[in-house]
Amino acid sequence: MTATSAPSRRIPVGVLGATGAVGQTFIRLLADHPWFEVAAVAASERSAGKRYRDAAHWLSGEMPARVADLMVTACDPASVDTQIVFSALDSDAAQEVEAAFARAGKLVLSNARNYRMDADVPLLIPEVNPDHLGLLPIQRAARKWSGAIVTNSNCSTMVIALALAPLHEAFGVEQLFVTTLQALSGAGYPGVPSLDILGNIIPFIGGGEEEKIESEPLKILGVFEHGAVTPARMRVSAQVNRVAVEHGHTACMSVKLATAATPDAAMQALRSWKGAIAALGLPSAPAEPVMVTMERDRPQPRRDVNAGGGMSVVVGRVRTDPILDLRLVAMGHNTIRGAAGASILNAELMFARGLIAV
Amino acid sequence: MTATSAPSRRIPVGVLGATGAVGQTFIRLLADHPWFEVAAVAASERSAGKRYRDAAHWLSGEMPARVADLMVTACDPASVDTQIVFSALDSDAAQEVEAAFARAGKLVLSNARNYRMDADVPLLIPEVNPDHLGLLPIQRAARKWSGAIVTNSNCSTMVIALALAPLHEAFGVEQLFVTTLQALSGAGYPGVPSLDILGNIIPFIGGGEEEKIESEPLKILGVFEHGAVTPARMRVSAQVNRVAVEHGHTACMSVKLATAATPDAAMQALRSWKGAIAALGLPSAPAEPVMVTMERDRPQPRRDVNAGGGMSVVVGRVRTDPILDLRLVAMGHNTIRGAAGASILNAELMFARGLIAV
Amino acid sequence: MTATSAPSRRIPVGVLGATGAVGQTFIRLLADHPWFEVAAVAASERSAGKRYRDAAHWLSGEMPARVADLMVTACDPASVDTQIVFSALDSDAAQEVEAAFARAGKLVLSNARNYRMDADVPLLIPEVNPDHLGLLPIQRAARKWSGAIVTNSNCSTMVIALALAPLHEAFGVEQLFVTTLQALSGAGYPGVPSLDILGNIIPFIGGGEEEKIESEPLKILGVFEHGAVTPARMRVSAQVNRVAVEHGHTACMSVKLATAATPDAAMQALRSWKGAIAALGLPSAPAEPVMVTMERDRPQPRRDVNAGGGMSVVVGRVRTDPILDLRLVAMGHNTIRGAAGASILNAELMFARGLIAV
Amino acid sequence: MTATSAPSRRIPVGVLGATGAVGQTFIRLLADHPWFEVAAVAASERSAGKRYRDAAHWLSGEMPARVADLMVTACDPASVDTQIVFSALDSDAAQEVEAAFARAGKLVLSNARNYRMDADVPLLIPEVNPDHLGLLPIQRAARKWSGAIVTNSNCSTMVIALALAPLHEAFGVEQLFVTTLQALSGAGYPGVPSLDILGNIIPFIGGGEEEKIESEPLKILGVFEHGAVTPARMRVSAQVNRVAVEHGHTACMSVKLATAATPDAAMQALRSWKGAIAALGLPSAPAEPVMVTMERDRPQPRRDVNAGGGMSVVVGRVRTDPILDLRLVAMGHNTIRGAAGASILNAELMFARGLIAV
Repeated sequence: MTATSAPSRRIPVGVLGATGAVGQTFIRLLADHPWFEVAAVAASERSAGKRYRDAAHWLSGEMPARVADLMVTACDPASVDTQIVFSALDSDAAQEVEAAFARAGKLVLSNARNYRMDADVPLLIPEVNPDHLGLLPIQRAARKWSGAIVTNSNCSTMVIALALAPLHEAFGVEQLFVTTLQALSGAGYPGVPSLDILGNIIPFIGGGEEEKIESEPLKILGVFEHGAVTPARMRVSAQVNRVAVEHGHTACMSVKLATAATPDAAMQALRSWKGAIAALGLPSAPAEPVMVTMERDRPQPRRDVNAGGGMSVVVGRVRTDPILDLRLVAMGHNTIRGAAGASILNAELMFARGLIAV
Repeated sequence: MTATSAPSRRIPVGVLGATGAVGQTFIRLLADHPWFEVAAVAASERSAGKRYRDAAHWLSGEMPARVADLMVTACDPASVDTQIVFSALDSDAAQEVEAAFARAGKLVLSNARNYRMDADVPLLIPEVNPDHLGLLPIQRAARKWSGAIVTNSNCSTMVIALALAPLHEAFGVEQLFVTTLQALSGAGYPGVPSLDILGNIIPFIGGGEEEKIESEPLKILGVFEHGAVTPARMRVSAQVNRVAVEHGHTACMSVKLATAATPDAAMQALRSWKGAIAALGLPSAPAEPVMVTMERDRPQPRRDVNAGGGMSVVVGRVRTDPILDLRLVAMGHNTIRGAAGASILNAELMFARGLIAV
Repeated sequence: MTATSAPSRRIPVGVLGATGAVGQTFIRLLADHPWFEVAAVAASERSAGKRYRDAAHWLSGEMPARVADLMVTACDPASVDTQIVFSALDSDAAQEVEAAFARAGKLVLSNARNYRMDADVPLLIPEVNPDHLGLLPIQRAARKWSGAIVTNSNCSTMVIALALAPLHEAFGVEQLFVTTLQALSGAGYPGVPSLDILGNIIPFIGGGEEEKIESEPLKILGVFEHGAVTPARMRVSAQVNRVAVEHGHTACMSVKLATAATPDAAMQALRSWKGAIAALGLPSAPAEPVMVTMERDRPQPRRDVNAGGGMSVVVGRVRTDPILDLRLVAMGHNTIRGAAGASILNAELMFARGLIAV
Repeated sequence: MTATSAPSRRIPVGVLGATGAVGQTFIRLLADHPWFEVAAVAASERSAGKRYRDAAHWLSGEMPARVADLMVTACDPASVDTQIVFSALDSDAAQEVEAAFARAGKLVLSNARNYRMDADVPLLIPEVNPDHLGLLPIQRAARKWSGAIVTNSNCSTMVIALALAPLHEAFGVEQLFVTTLQALSGAGYPGVPSLDILGNIIPFIGGGEEEKIESEPLKILGVFEHGAVTPARMRVSAQVNRVAVEHGHTACMSVKLATAATPDAAMQALRSWKGAIAALGLPSAPAEPVMVTMERDRPQPRRDVNAGGGMSVVVGRVRTDPILDLRLVAMGHNTIRGAAGASILNAELMFARGLIAV
């Protein structure tokens, strides 16, 4: 495996749901991307026909000038003439729209939950399960699509799965109790009313958040063979909370291992783990997908959320669990590593694997 | 058991550590107490000799006028001439000072952690283990004290133990995984710097917070017989977090029971539980020590923290746990139910039991 | 002037816009009102026909049981059969709906901005300008209404006008520079998205907030004679900000007086001012409409907002202004004194004046 | 005036008070500075003798590796062998320590208030009053120092003075009413307790904050001639508030001009103003010292504080004032533009002027 050569010129990409919070994160992350360039922005009927600058209530920093001038189109394949589309669509819209794009021959990199758990759809984390891309021929055959859908996980799942992967590879993870403290940006914009969260926490997140965390890691850490993913044998119990943090989901985890491990051994496994794609030189891949902190009161979202450009998960407080084997705290950027950045990294892997025509 | 008759006149009490955050909560809660009246306020050398109004940086509401005029004394038994003293001392000071008061014949109602786990000291929650007061004769004999020390638990333990007690009585609790989201007032004043917590969470609390939560509930739910408390056979794994909430500690709990129970049965057990002292009519005892909410996104600290005057623990989201038996969220007021209010309720129970001379 | 006799039985009242944030404040404040009792709740089409408990996303504390069972009606006079209606309607709806109620013979106590500056409509603060009720016969004659509309001011204006009134009476106010720091509840619910305000301030509030503050105080402090209100001769410059505070609008004020006054003289004027209705014994009238604090860092919204049950304005930091005469900081509860409580106090004054049939 | 040539090798500098909040900002900003390099870190007795990594409670991001290994020295000239020292000392320590360094031949770039208003000490903003460096020979002669002290202003003053400078140059500023909303980092670390500011604002800042804002701009905008600075003829009335914002002081300003100007003319003056040193190419000088936003709800600290790398002041809401001439809102980064970055820019100007030996 060697470093990937950049495309001879930047590949045009589209963003579906481009005006929302995750859509804007796509726009920001792609603004200076060495391989991709935003050529199409699509959103709801309400926005279609406006310039992007007028359609989006821009949330953070400067809007990239090139994109600001683009005309927003409707979310249909006829209006978006790029081979690659990043989807920041809500699950309400994603089911039909993403299928329409795949049917029309597009590669859809999706953040929505709709197709994640379908047997023929990769739930991809490049560092963890790049071989799950082997599902694509099966997906295409089964659905008669010339394009395809590749999904990334729920934003909390991403933090949890990246923290688990090194431990699972080294020791086998059998049980996980996890409580999350999730950032406001995970709810999109306008999202959580300030009167609900100022000086408060809310011990609930809608949309099946706990169920996603309890099911997605099993598929992600599953084994691909004979044309299918066999889920990891692991049980997960999740409790979720919304907290008054801008970006960064925190997960307090208690883990039962197949092979016992000391905290030192666990930290060693976490620290030395580089993931399956380190040699590929993907532009969005962080040097350390998992960083380990020895500070007794870290990771903290406001202070650590931008580790690795927002693409690293920071793990701390690795210690013995009085009932199971290990306790630890993991934290990662929910709209970068947990959403837009994850989709982009997925597309980079597909390019490196020759799955994107240039 | 019948309702307790009020004392013929209000019993004078002292407050140790009266100028700090918990000390102020004592002053506030005792301001209109039907049985007790603050007659002495003691604090560090720095404050001694000043009027209370000048010594305390008052944090909330109006300072009660009577107390404002009291002269602050040093924390020694010679300066505090009341039989009952409520101690809001830090653990640094509590070890020696509380012993000195007990030796001098005082009844010390302590918030500090120092004596909680001593075999001859009650770790008392009136609704849960009033019979643990049976340790007092043993304590007096062993230590040759004419007074005594009675402790209340750590503020998070209080929330957790009250939520567990009905379940333990009905079904037996064998394991608990708990992650807390704890309020700022739990750290006292000045406590947590705003630059550390604004838009942030801190996954750590010093002073052995997790160890307290893992040990104290076993003693609280233990059985008193033959002059000793046999701890409950239960294992606890705790992870703690500080969050930007003023008052109210939240605990996300996963519970393994000896006898399986449905969420409905658990809610029924929680709802119907009135505790061991309902008939005594203690002034600070809430009508419902444990309240159950059916709202899917409650309890929330800012909205529910004053339930039962801050003396009720609110439990919600009772549901099946995918690995163990039950999941639930409990929340209670950390400086009222979890500190000053708990001590006062302990003193009320002692009065009702005739353990306070009038 | 003597204390008002309570009505022989509680007078039924209606609340328009009863499900919103201000509407809920009406419901809460009226729950234990000695003179009034909520008999009708009206809201938008979407809510009409539901029980109040199902129609309102209740924001704070317990919903009063009586009201919870009421059926929500549409906002038309035929559906609301009470003589008195409190209006928490948005300005979009208020124009037509409030007129329809007045035309149908109802007394409308309005929070909306629509009619406030109309020459024949009282912009009433009972302590300040009770004689402005003299506009009612003129209003009825001009509009051929059997009912009437009485308005209370913008929530920031209320804080400012109450702080100015004693100074205006004593020394004459000629100029005011005021910068406000306004609470989130002033924007209603869902109101300000948390992603906009967490760790932030917004130096803008829509709906003509600054213009209201620059015009309403002149009418409030104006003189009623010969059937009309002559506005005070005063100029106001206002700048407004939204801050991450739940309740309590703060106003930093620089004041030019007609007759120079020292800070001590100003504080004396503020402290001794009891307003025009002190003798009437109105249930919602605070003992001190304006309270003066000597603490150098007060008033603070979180600590002082409930002064006088939320009906007092707290003034502090009264000091010399280097350019004009005086500087001071005023703070008051925006949804109680600045909205629902103000309307209720207005109704109480009307009852005391015999303007409400019983 | 032409762009400045970089020194042939990086000039070693020292930081006094290097472990505090402003000291850390110096360390961060100097980590990659093209001209300067941190060679000495000095702090209180308590820290002296420790490695910097062990002495500083590091607040944000990664500690620069080079500095982490430096040994902290005491704050005396014998221990700090660099010609240039940046002082982040508190005013308690600054009076004597800064004088000792100047006496010992060092150039002291000071953040402290102590010497700012001394007649022979420049209160320097390079874009505004670079000629005030002409005070240095006078200072040296008067005090018999071989070194010198150059100060930068109070952090709020900096925001206000930069917003005023273009208006003063174009139209003459005669009066200013200003209310500030100041960030937590302005109070240092640990600074403001979270229990004081969560969901709150505090209408007071100690240390003479209002007095500084009322006096410093007059000196900054004053004219240097005949060896002295004649203060601008201008009167300022300031009211300050602490708000729950991490970085970024906001100033709501009402301005009286000598020559009337429309908002458009004012914005044109602000926008076109590049300051006195644009041609020098100083590394820390922002392309636009003053940026003008047309968004109706900007500037906002969380969204705009890093404009120009934290060195630009953002001005918005430029509009007519109903009493004076103009109203506007200015916002800037209090620990970068308002403190450490200001000192560094001052040193850069001195290097460009040949005032630093290499």
